[in-house]
Formats: sequence, structure tokens, C-alpha cells
Amino acid sequence: MTSFPAAVRPPRSAVDLDRLVARLRERQPRAVGRAISIVEAGGAAQAELVRRVFPATGRARTVGITGPPGAGKSTLVDRLAAAARARGETVGILCIDPTSPYSGGALLGDRIRMQGLATDPGVFIRSMATRGALGGLARSTRDAVDLLDAAGFDWVLVETVGVGQDEVDVVSSVDTVLVVAVPGLGDDIQALKAGILEIADVFVLNKADREGADRAYRDLASVLSLGDHDAESWLPPIVRTVASRDEGIGEVAAAIDRHRAWLGEGERLAERRRSQLRLRVETILKERMLAAAREEAGLESEVARGFVERADPYTLADQLFRGVVAAESGRETGR
Amino acid sequence: MTSFPAAVRPPRSAVDLDRLVARLRERQPRAVGRAISIVEAGGAAQAELVRRVFPATGRARTVGITGPPGAGKSTLVDRLAAAARARGETVGILCIDPTSPYSGGALLGDRIRMQGLATDPGVFIRSMATRGALGGLARSTRDAVDLLDAAGFDWVLVETVGVGQDEVDVVSSVDTVLVVAVPGLGDDIQALKAGILEIADVFVLNKADREGADRAYRDLASVLSLGDHDAESWLPPIVRTVASRDEGIGEVAAAIDRHRAWLGEGERLAERRRSQLRLRVETILKERMLAAAREEAGLESEVARGFVERADPYTLADQLFRGVVAAESGRETGR
Repeated sequence: MTSFPAAVRPPRSAVDLDRLVARLRERQPRAVGRAISIVEAGGAAQAELVRRVFPATGRARTVGITGPPGAGKSTLVDRLAAAARARGETVGILCIDPTSPYSGGALLGDRIRMQGLATDPGVFIRSMATRGALGGLARSTRDAVDLLDAAGFDWVLVETVGVGQDEVDVVSSVDTVLVVAVPGLGDDIQALKAGILEIADVFVLNKADREGADRAYRDLASVLSLGDHDAESWLPPIVRTVASRDEGIGEVAAAIDRHRAWLGEGERLAERRRSQLRLRVETILKERMLAAAREEAGLESEVARGFVERADPYTLADQLFRGVVAAESGRETGR
Repeated sequence: MTSFPAAVRPPRSAVDLDRLVARLRERQPRAVGRAISIVEAGGAAQAELVRRVFPATGRARTVGITGPPGAGKSTLVDRLAAAARARGETVGILCIDPTSPYSGGALLGDRIRMQGLATDPGVFIRSMATRGALGGLARSTRDAVDLLDAAGFDWVLVETVGVGQDEVDVVSSVDTVLVVAVPGLGDDIQALKAGILEIADVFVLNKADREGADRAYRDLASVLSLGDHDAESWLPPIVRTVASRDEGIGEVAAAIDRHRAWLGEGERLAERRRSQLRLRVETILKERMLAAAREEAGLESEVARGFVERADPYTLADQLFRGVVAAESGRETGR
């Protein structure tokens, strides 16, 4: 059973979906937007949509941009997009916004007003909510990257806010990960160590005209030198930028190019993408299990009953798992 | 199939497990530590251990402490623990550390050196890694809370680092959530809005002697006033502290007491714990699905094959899901 937010009209038929995919492949902005709304909503239409566009994916250069709030990620993304446009390349941008009842989509609005990229037909900007009503954000973001890739955008930039596991999951779906830091992070360097450092392909030290930039550079460099490196491995470069003044953007683009060239050698890109595929499959499996437990094994009512009877969570999960297997195997046999 | 890290010896038999549980119930530190290692390792022994202690849980007052790095959470936790000890109550502390190849368990070491709580038999401190080798951190943390609860600690404090979804998941397993902020957060207030504000039962404005404390207080208060509130709902208080000088700790303890008293009215505590149970069951179901896909449906080799054939992730997940159902239903019938 699939339900959609009121704003998203599900395709009524396979013919509808064919038409949507055809228009998406022509990079028609409304079709791209509608397709992303479908993968955000989740459900059967979204899986079918990804199945259809999947053969056309794998061509775009995908870059994730992450780092703590206030590091200037949005400005950096806009400058990178402008630089790509100057080379005649098209850019799709996904902003993974901190959405809450209070902040809504304000960040995206600010960006569009500030930059004017919105009127450029070679740029597509879309905000995605961190609180997906149905299904996880990591899954829908990966699907949206596929859609932009299949739509023929040369670059797909995925910008996240924050440094948590969510962000790590989201950016693990791209080929090159930029981690943006700023001088004066202080204790945050400690936090960066936790998970984020390991996923960085390029460090950007933004606002490098600020006091403390040299110290922050040294801190980052010393943390990086602690990692395991050999002749085969990629040592993430640290690039200084002042994105608000367009300084250092060419160097960031060059670092992305170098990383992509390195990935291109031997089996590296294939290994990275195989690992991305595994993560996606695992995410879909987990979500499908939950959906089945809710719809076929009565998760809600079983938990309510178990709570009253003081059942432990492992026993409850065991019963639900067996309930799903029974329902699903019955369905198989009944075919 | 269950595997254990070298350091964790699995109980060899049900008798071993009985003995471990008996010693845990006597609050013997070595037994408590070993039990937590078992739930960290995951697998069958961990589920069985939680099943056995579960009837003895539900008595402890559980408090989660979260907030951005550098907010002074560790110091606050230590002071709260000391305040509880002064009332003659026992305290179990779980520190969810940012563990990486670089930082290891350094934070915990610092704490013990600083405080001297480690020599107090009424206090148990344990660090848990954010990168569980087997199974998710949220699940093992919830299990560890159960173990400390069953061991008879009056308080269980769960301290996390960071403000991501991981932290939200971890603290959702407690009755009262403290969100710690500091003056000068700036853009971080924006980040706090995303997810963290909604889970806060008590705000602690730590380092309240710093410049900007009044502004930070007003910012927090104005953000809070935007939420939905009626006569029935709990309005999270903002408590000013200077934890390093032991200022405001009594007020924090009083705020926790008030929140707990509020929870105690009507069905509120039951609702909260039912929702916690549902989250735990869902987490276990997801992990079990992944384990079954790996062990019974050949997830790794199917992904490798699918990658070569350019299969899309939804089709692969579908095949694996049906593979698990077939294997599990065969097992049921074969019994």
C-alpha cells in the first residue's frame, strides 16, 4: 500500500511513468522536480521510477559537500556551480536541509535570492527534507542523485548540513566528498574526527581570511597525517577558500578533478560504486522489512500488547519477524 | 551465527548466563562490564541476556545528555552524578564516545582522571563506541541502559557527543532528555532547531558566565516559544549553569525531578515507554533482516553480481527479500 503527500500526484499508469521518464531525460525542470517528489514520497512508484532510469545513470560527476553549520557550504556550492557553468557544464544541486516545524525550507529560499542561479536553465536546485514522511532520507537522496544523473546533468552536488551519521550516509552515495571546515572550530575538530574525517576526499578550509586560519590548517594537517597512508592511497588535500569572495574555487575544482582521475585508475571507482550499491540495497531491505512488519504482522498492535504484558523487545521482534515470513511465504505460494 | 570480538568471551552456557545475571543484579562491576560487552558484541547471547534482565527493568531514572561538542556535557554529567551520590543514590553512566581510529577512548580516560568518581563503588562509568563492529549503537545503548537498570542503579545517565540522528536515536531511549547549549553557538542554533529541539525536556545553558549568555538565553527562549504548547504540554525550562564551578547543578536536578513528576501523571510515562519499545523493536527487526540477507540470501555475492550486470538496487533488494523469506519459511517447515 502506497500513500502520497497531497502535493505529489502518483503516476496513474505505466504510460504516465514512461512520459515522465522521457521528459526527465530531456531535462525538463518540471519533470525533474516531479520525479524527485515521487522518490521523496516513497512507495511502489518510486521503486519503479528508479528501475527505469537506472540504465541511464553512472555518467554524472557526483560530489557531496558536508561540514558543520556555518562553514559556508551553500556559498561554496553556489560558487562551484558557477565555475562549472563557466565551463559550459550543467549542474544539479540537492540541498539536504535541516527541516523542522520552525525553519521550513528557508535556507533554500535564501540561496536562490542570493545567487540568481535559479534563472539559469543549466542549473537545477532542489531542497530535500531531513524528515521524510515516508522512508529514509538517505534512500531518497540516492534516488534523486540517480534522477539528476539520468536527466543528463554533468555535475550532481549534494549539500548536507551537520556532521552526523545521516550526513555520512547521504554523502556516501557520491564519488567525491568535500568536508568544509572553518577557522575557530576548536572542539569541533574533535567531532570532525568522529566519522567525518574518514569520508573526506578533499578538505576545504573556508573563510581562510579569518584569524586562526593557519592554526586550523595545521590542526587539520596533523589529524590527516595520523591516518594510514601508503603509495596507493589518496591523501585528502586541504584547500583554502574564501567562497564569499570567490577565492580558491578553481583550486577546489582542480582537487575534485584530481580525485576523480585517481578514482578512475584500476578498480577504484568500481569498488566505490559497488559499496554504494550495497548500502542502498541494505537501506531498501531494512525499510521494506519495517513496512511489512507494519502492514502484514501488525507491528503497532503487537507492540501495544507486548508493552502491557511487559514483553522484551527481542521476543517481540522475533514474533514479528516470523509473522512477516509467514505472510510473505503465504503470498508466494498463493501466486 | 554469532561472532564476538576477541576481548568478549561469550557465555558458554545458560548456566554461565544465569551466573552473570545474578552477579549483575548484585551490581558487581565486573559482571556489569562484561554484560555490556556482550550487548555491544551483538548476537544470540545479547538477546538472551536482555530477555533475562528485562523483568527487572523500569525502575531507574534514565536521563540523556546531548548537545554540540564543547558544550561541557561531560563536566555536567560528572556534577550531576556527584549530586546524586550526595543524596545517597547510585549512578550508572554511559558515554557514547566519538570513536575513530585516531581518538580511541581518550575522552573517557580524561574524565576518570579529572573526577575521581571512578573509585566510588556507587558509580559505574562505561564508554560505548559509536562504531559498533556488530549491530547498531542505538540498540546496544538501549540494551546497556536495561542492564544498568536491572543492576539496580538509581540513575542511568546517557551522554552523547554531537547532534545528529544517531544522538536523537540514542537519547530517545531515556525518560528525560537534557540538551546542553553554550553561548556563542551562532549558526548552531539553526542546527539545534533541526531535530534536537523537539526532543529536549530540559535545556541547560552551560558556561553561562560567558559573554553572550543573555543573548543565547533569549535565542533559546524565542525558539522554544515557537513550538506548540497547551496546558497539557511540557514547556522545557532553560537552566543556566557553570558546571565547571558546580553552579546551577541543583537547579538542573530539580528540573529533572519536575519533568519526571509531570511524566508520572496519567498515561504520559507509559506512552513514552511504549514508543521507546516500538523503536527498539523496529531497530532489532531491521538488523535481523540485514543479518538474514547476508547469511541466508548471499547479500554480498548478489550485490557483486548485480553490480556487474548493472541491476538496480530495488530489483536486487526485492530478490534478497524473497530469498530471506524462502530460507526462513523453509526453516520453519523443517522444524
